[in-house]
Amino acid sequence: MATHEHTIKAFDEEIGQLRGLIAQMGGLAEQAIGDAIEALKRHDLTDAARIVADDKKIDLLEHQVEALAVRIIALRAPMADDLRDVVAALKIAGVIERIGDYAKNIAKRTPLIDAHGEIEPLSILPAMAALAIEMVHDVLDAFAARDPAAAVLVCERDKAVDDFYNSLFRVLVTHMMENPAQIGQIAHLLFIAKNLERIGDHATNVAEMVYFAATGTHMAERDRGTAPTI
Amino acid sequence: MATHEHTIKAFDEEIGQLRGLIAQMGGLAEQAIGDAIEALKRHDLTDAARIVADDKKIDLLEHQVEALAVRIIALRAPMADDLRDVVAALKIAGVIERIGDYAKNIAKRTPLIDAHGEIEPLSILPAMAALAIEMVHDVLDAFAARDPAAAVLVCERDKAVDDFYNSLFRVLVTHMMENPAQIGQIAHLLFIAKNLERIGDHATNVAEMVYFAATGTHMAERDRGTAPTI
Repeated sequence: MATHEHTIKAFDEEIGQLRGLIAQMGGLAEQAIGDAIEALKRHDLTDAARIVADDKKIDLLEHQVEALAVRIIALRAPMADDLRDVVAALKIAGVIERIGDYAKNIAKRTPLIDAHGEIEPLSILPAMAALAIEMVHDVLDAFAARDPAAAVLVCERDKAVDDFYNSLFRVLVTHMMENPAQIGQIAHLLFIAKNLERIGDHATNVAEMVYFAATGTHMAERDRGTAPTI
Repeated sequence: MATHEHTIKAFDEEIGQLRGLIAQMGGLAEQAIGDAIEALKRHDLTDAARIVADDKKIDLLEHQVEALAVRIIALRAPMADDLRDVVAALKIAGVIERIGDYAKNIAKRTPLIDAHGEIEPLSILPAMAALAIEMVHDVLDAFAARDPAAAVLVCERDKAVDDFYNSLFRVLVTHMMENPAQIGQIAHLLFIAKNLERIGDHATNVAEMVYFAATGTHMAERDRGTAPTI
């Protein structure tokens, strides 16, 4: 085999490893979000503590992505498309790590929310979480398939998560007014809703990175979903 | 000049550029936090809108850091200390960009908080913001001076910001109970307090990166400040 071909093969293998690590990170992050909402619903403090501890696995994978990406850039000095791909992987890993942090954050609030308090808005969160998880899942599929059209579809769904958040915000504020004794707990639910909304924003950011990596151009403003909510 | 010396000189110049861009980003982010809290206090919607728009400058600088860091890694293939330095710059730029987002987020909430409503907890926020700004300022000084001891000092101060947040959380919840009509607005203040607390966490993260870049070892667990609040 010629040296040139050998280099290309080594590069492709390394990029494949990078994508594999990111798929692993994404799988763990999706799982963490779903588990965190489930633990919250069941007021399962043991599982909540497990989710908090497991976040370290995602952090560790991010370090591996970073080390591998830097090694690829330094050793192979990839150009154009290939370089865009490696840099995208590096950045996407950073975003998934943050998504994992949001899941951890939800788990950390579980002890502060009393399931026996019959907090009605608690029942709305799983549907919002399902939307956010779907966005994370689909954007990582788009990355794996280098599919810019699929990335645009993910962005379009960010509006649904934002709308969900905005109506939940109103529901929670109303609930606070009607149940002053639960205000502290509802404040924690407000932060949890916000975390889910931010996960949607981050999936949108990843979608923009996937689009750029795949096409070399930035996604059109109109496709970038809604302006981030506050 | 020998080629080797020439390469070293070019590398040092590029690293200097990288540090200069990060100092610029940090300056803009500090300014944005202070201005956002000031605009909130004065209910100055014009300045709040300006702060939101100006965040693009920080994003642009981050892109420049990224492009330069990738070019340095690809062209110079730096080893050990030098590579750690370039990767730290890349990561620190990402964190400052997030700090800028928090300032933007505070500015975005300004129209939602009615200054004439005489919301008393509003008067506590500037002191908390001053603490957070100081941490950002000092950690970037530590990066510029490659001073690991100064980085440890920044981490130690995260506890003060966390304590501030925790007591503010209680004050705000109590205020909600006593002023049900202001619950919506206070909820926004709660998010603003959280944003400032997160800025402190991010300054701590940067401090850990500065420490690692300067020493090649990770900061001892006990020096990393408090566990991040939820």
